[in-house]
Amino acid sequence: MGGTGVWLVGARGSVATTAIAGAAAIRAGGAPPTGCVAELPDFTGAGLPPLSDLVFGGHDVVDTPLRKRAEQLVRAGVLPASTVRLVADDLESAEAELRVADPDAGNTGPQAGTIARIVDDLIDFGIRNGLERTVVVNVASTEPPCTPHPAHRDLDALDTALRGPGPVLPPSSVYAYAAFRAGCGFVDFTPSTGARLPALHELALRTRQPYAGRDGKTGETLLRSVLAPMFARRGLDVLSWSGTNLLGGGDGATLADPRAAASKNASKQRVLERNLGGPVDGQVHIDYVPALGEWKTAWDHVLFEGFLGARMSLQLTWQGCDSALAAPLVLDLARFTAKACRAGARGPVPELGFFFKDPVGDVPHDLATQYVLLRDWAQR
Amino acid sequence: MGGTGVWLVGARGSVATTAIAGAAAIRAGGAPPTGCVAELPDFTGAGLPPLSDLVFGGHDVVDTPLRKRAEQLVRAGVLPASTVRLVADDLESAEAELRVADPDAGNTGPQAGTIARIVDDLIDFGIRNGLERTVVVNVASTEPPCTPHPAHRDLDALDTALRGPGPVLPPSSVYAYAAFRAGCGFVDFTPSTGARLPALHELALRTRQPYAGRDGKTGETLLRSVLAPMFARRGLDVLSWSGTNLLGGGDGATLADPRAAASKNASKQRVLERNLGGPVDGQVHIDYVPALGEWKTAWDHVLFEGFLGARMSLQLTWQGCDSALAAPLVLDLARFTAKACRAGARGPVPELGFFFKDPVGDVPHDLATQYVLLRDWAQR
Amino acid sequence: MGGTGVWLVGARGSVATTAIAGAAAIRAGGAPPTGCVAELPDFTGAGLPPLSDLVFGGHDVVDTPLRKRAEQLVRAGVLPASTVRLVADDLESAEAELRVADPDAGNTGPQAGTIARIVDDLIDFGIRNGLERTVVVNVASTEPPCTPHPAHRDLDALDTALRGPGPVLPPSSVYAYAAFRAGCGFVDFTPSTGARLPALHELALRTRQPYAGRDGKTGETLLRSVLAPMFARRGLDVLSWSGTNLLGGGDGATLADPRAAASKNASKQRVLERNLGGPVDGQVHIDYVPALGEWKTAWDHVLFEGFLGARMSLQLTWQGCDSALAAPLVLDLARFTAKACRAGARGPVPELGFFFKDPVGDVPHDLATQYVLLRDWAQR
Amino acid sequence: MGGTGVWLVGARGSVATTAIAGAAAIRAGGAPPTGCVAELPDFTGAGLPPLSDLVFGGHDVVDTPLRKRAEQLVRAGVLPASTVRLVADDLESAEAELRVADPDAGNTGPQAGTIARIVDDLIDFGIRNGLERTVVVNVASTEPPCTPHPAHRDLDALDTALRGPGPVLPPSSVYAYAAFRAGCGFVDFTPSTGARLPALHELALRTRQPYAGRDGKTGETLLRSVLAPMFARRGLDVLSWSGTNLLGGGDGATLADPRAAASKNASKQRVLERNLGGPVDGQVHIDYVPALGEWKTAWDHVLFEGFLGARMSLQLTWQGCDSALAAPLVLDLARFTAKACRAGARGPVPELGFFFKDPVGDVPHDLATQYVLLRDWAQR
Repeated sequence: MGGTGVWLVGARGSVATTAIAGAAAIRAGGAPPTGCVAELPDFTGAGLPPLSDLVFGGHDVVDTPLRKRAEQLVRAGVLPASTVRLVADDLESAEAELRVADPDAGNTGPQAGTIARIVDDLIDFGIRNGLERTVVVNVASTEPPCTPHPAHRDLDALDTALRGPGPVLPPSSVYAYAAFRAGCGFVDFTPSTGARLPALHELALRTRQPYAGRDGKTGETLLRSVLAPMFARRGLDVLSWSGTNLLGGGDGATLADPRAAASKNASKQRVLERNLGGPVDGQVHIDYVPALGEWKTAWDHVLFEGFLGARMSLQLTWQGCDSALAAPLVLDLARFTAKACRAGARGPVPELGFFFKDPVGDVPHDLATQYVLLRDWAQR
Repeated sequence: MGGTGVWLVGARGSVATTAIAGAAAIRAGGAPPTGCVAELPDFTGAGLPPLSDLVFGGHDVVDTPLRKRAEQLVRAGVLPASTVRLVADDLESAEAELRVADPDAGNTGPQAGTIARIVDDLIDFGIRNGLERTVVVNVASTEPPCTPHPAHRDLDALDTALRGPGPVLPPSSVYAYAAFRAGCGFVDFTPSTGARLPALHELALRTRQPYAGRDGKTGETLLRSVLAPMFARRGLDVLSWSGTNLLGGGDGATLADPRAAASKNASKQRVLERNLGGPVDGQVHIDYVPALGEWKTAWDHVLFEGFLGARMSLQLTWQGCDSALAAPLVLDLARFTAKACRAGARGPVPELGFFFKDPVGDVPHDLATQYVLLRDWAQR
Repeated sequence: MGGTGVWLVGARGSVATTAIAGAAAIRAGGAPPTGCVAELPDFTGAGLPPLSDLVFGGHDVVDTPLRKRAEQLVRAGVLPASTVRLVADDLESAEAELRVADPDAGNTGPQAGTIARIVDDLIDFGIRNGLERTVVVNVASTEPPCTPHPAHRDLDALDTALRGPGPVLPPSSVYAYAAFRAGCGFVDFTPSTGARLPALHELALRTRQPYAGRDGKTGETLLRSVLAPMFARRGLDVLSWSGTNLLGGGDGATLADPRAAASKNASKQRVLERNLGGPVDGQVHIDYVPALGEWKTAWDHVLFEGFLGARMSLQLTWQGCDSALAAPLVLDLARFTAKACRAGARGPVPELGFFFKDPVGDVPHDLATQYVLLRDWAQR
Repeated sequence: MGGTGVWLVGARGSVATTAIAGAAAIRAGGAPPTGCVAELPDFTGAGLPPLSDLVFGGHDVVDTPLRKRAEQLVRAGVLPASTVRLVADDLESAEAELRVADPDAGNTGPQAGTIARIVDDLIDFGIRNGLERTVVVNVASTEPPCTPHPAHRDLDALDTALRGPGPVLPPSSVYAYAAFRAGCGFVDFTPSTGARLPALHELALRTRQPYAGRDGKTGETLLRSVLAPMFARRGLDVLSWSGTNLLGGGDGATLADPRAAASKNASKQRVLERNLGGPVDGQVHIDYVPALGEWKTAWDHVLFEGFLGARMSLQLTWQGCDSALAAPLVLDLARFTAKACRAGARGPVPELGFFFKDPVGDVPHDLATQYVLLRDWAQR
């Protein structure tokens, strides 16, 4: 039987390039699968498509060759030079499967035409590579918050509106729509809207496709999803939780836009509220520091009260490489979503909440419980 | 029916004084039960003895009045002055129940005499106060590692040896022995030996008493027990985990003794090993910094490797007041152990592993799973 | 000869209350003069008025008694309870010298009337206490940036405008004007405008009074003024310097207003630029975290490049009590400014740049050089 | 006239390799002289030998080719790959000037023979390269503390002892002796003994050679030498200063030996004592963490008391690459010491105290004053 397609929206970005190069390196025996959840002993025998069966394709608005992007990531300290030499052929194969994204996707209409082209690309990709199925994963830059439109609430209205002039859906939602129409599962690894509109939910159900998201949990929020439950389980009273994120790279530049940052911050604070049982004082800042390159530093300060009002604090500094943290999760999500497809799941897959800052569906908010949910689901 | 006795070994120490004053303040409505696990909604209806039914007594080798100790803790910023004024009468009541510890307990023999006196004190305490039962909680200073003795392996041999000359058991084990003989459950909140000897385990089973321990998890190890599982569940490879603890107060002075520190460090690194599946590089230092008073600062540095070998790090600084962190857990443990007694538990209670660095029995090592175990047990 | 008057604008604020209580406690032998620069051996024999000769008065818009403010500062952990008991009489004496500030000072005009009342208060204060001289120190809340007015450029124009309707000067400058007219030196411990207008500079020269400011250097900027020179002297290239300040208390609330924060941030980044020889990337955030009370936490992250482009970093966390840091410097500045008066200084006193984030005059920007300048001037 | 020789003891170590590669890269225009103090505008016209006139040679006990060491440093993230390609020829030239060190230097005697061979190597080096003069710089691994020997006190006794059996001098001192006899200045960049023996001081004076040291100040101590004076100048009372250093690489392994660490720690605490006017509580730990490779992380915690006893704290985390920090200082020291030679300096050069943790001679202990001393001396 055929492989599993992974169609990356933002396929020439750092995360996508790292995921493609890394999957090839692991397959070639050039690296252990560090950071890949699906490779943990708990998931042996879970029927996930093996890493070596993944076939990569995707869209991007830029056309820098993958090979060149990989070399940039070597200089940035993300990829080892030896890895890039080892996987040169795999990068060429993936390169052949990349298509230029319609730069106007979501901006000028009618968007029905853009969608039809994406659907064609997805179907051609599957046929050309003899794939059993394809999962679309959005790793493009974060969009500004979505402008509401009446057609978002109803699939029939949406279908009509997409044929009219003007943008109706943001780009991430255009891809979700196209994915479902092409019979693909959809994962939103970013805080963008993606499949999170009633009309798209309806489409997922009607086309019997699963979706997952949103906003991969790779650093500060990952920590919050284990530390906030710790305070809650000990009955300690969190008085404030403040954070500053210093980001270089493309993500930092995008998030320096206060509108894009707003969606990200909302999901970060939501993790605290849900774990701590109510709103928590404190701001989150996202600063663009170009010199950090592909790296990020997050500092969190938690002020809490214990027995008889004693004031205490916890500080955290997380220094990580965003692409190295995100890429293995992108591979995981493609594989788990493929399994969900095979198992006939449709609509949101709450069991994948483990991977996200702002998971769809009614899911627990602490990482440990999310892990148990994922493991038990995968082993069923 | 009568109250529940809490007999504190080290009853004039900072932890014990804070626990006694805090229980009284909460009972009087002068403080919320912040930091008390047993007061979380998950434990409503679990049949725990209410905080207001606890009656305190205990032993100590010093005789500074509790009231004076409480005033010292006000000056150290641990207790609010208003709390101490509010609970003055309760401190006097507890004062009347304190007894001077045999300063030679465990050091010169025969220890059978020391034990007989402790048993008498425990039984008198119960009768005088009409108690349903009593739990003995060890919050005395950490002992140096226990000197092995052949009689530790067998209860009959131990009974014989205790009647002979010379010390056989360390003080914490003398108390465990006496507790079991007096029909009391036993909790070891310190890294000392306590009930952890085959002969004492046998005695607990024979006298049908439960025990729990050891070494309350109040800071660095608490964090490790949620963060190490996070790394494990994400497939990230922890390369080193280093820690420095700066402690003032009595505990700092005791742990500055390398032999006492050795037991504590061993349990700290064990939490990492069990959660991460093998030994982890890195040292833990415990420094005595008198000027810190009742406060402690712990810094942890974790170096980890992600996808394709990317090196990343996490740093933590925890600034807390040890007594404020430990005291509510002492109250929790007394109440949960009382419930275990009532439920007929004997021997180690693995469900109380949530509270300890180095839990007895075959228990999970991550805090979230420990919590589920505790909650489900308590609700049964 | 008489004492030295210290007239505090914002006399019931935390800084002023701490300064008044602290001076009294030191005089009474109840506390060492920790944090007082003027008490260092380098300033013995410099002819500064002794701490015991300071007499306090001041204006405030609120009327909470000093005693009550002091008790609040005890509960907030700033003042020891024993200190407040010790200096109760001194607080009463100071209380008798406090006057209610015109709440409209600087907001509705004509401001000439407000100024006349302040001048009267200052002169009465001097006569009543038989003072040799008085120094006015502004420790009121930070103002928003000053609205430019043509009369700011010229003293004659200003005098005319002050007699007309509407506000011409911000409150801090009203006080500077009044101070000079009353024959007093003026210190601006805040980032407000104070004496920093050409017309007020002219008035200082004409009335032969010295002034100093602005914005006391008590934490993050103090550190920056020693660390930025370190990088410069080692030829290391600072790529970014980011900071987050978490403040409780009144100052935090005021600075949460972006306009007030703007003046503060500008002076923080200026210290870096002047020490590092050009603009430095990085933002500074000021967050109001009410639960911190009188305390502040500042986190700085410095990314720098060394030999052959090696990227390295420094992080700092400063946890301090603003009032405890500022109060001894207020006492220092009153005493050094009194000396400047006596020595006939007029206009800005660059030798006091050691104390300020944004010093007046052409002064060095690293703390070590500023100290040498201060010491040599004082010893002359 | 000829160039300036730089003879490196430990010439194949990371610091030496980085220094040789870096000097070549800067000369070739492939890198700016970041981190080189001698290239700051303050030292223009100071008559220092230009970087491009330095000629490298040295001794090492191992024989790994410099080219291979440079490639290791590329993989460790210390040297850019492009730099090593650019300077391949220069590494070959330096390779030709390296000699195998007598592995027994300092361990078995008579040491006079070892010294004679070193002197020959130094003189041959000078002649072969037509050098004006040579400076010997010790960058070998830290030695354990020196075993006292009566001959250390007197040059005549030393000369006699060196001709007898058994080791008299530790290796670093053997090199200092040989350097002086060969007419070379000597720099000790490590905490080893070097020229710090009365007999060697006598030899330096008799041979009219300058020396400098010891223990280059590249991280934690550099910070301490600006921060301790900050506390002192503000009259703040430092209660404790604790530090933990995590080191990978060879230096970490060496310093894990408690005897070697002892010398290093002593000089770290000395910087505090001299700046703060007395002993300061607190320990310093040096942990070997192999996974850190060439990088080090230092955490410092400072507890201090301000006005009226307020307790405050400062924490620092310094993350640096030791070789990148040390290498430019090695180049600086060779150049400044060459200038000292030319100027006829003999014995210790206190003006070079700016570079050292534990400077020779009666020198100031704060970095700012040390810099002024260096600058003024260089400009004379």
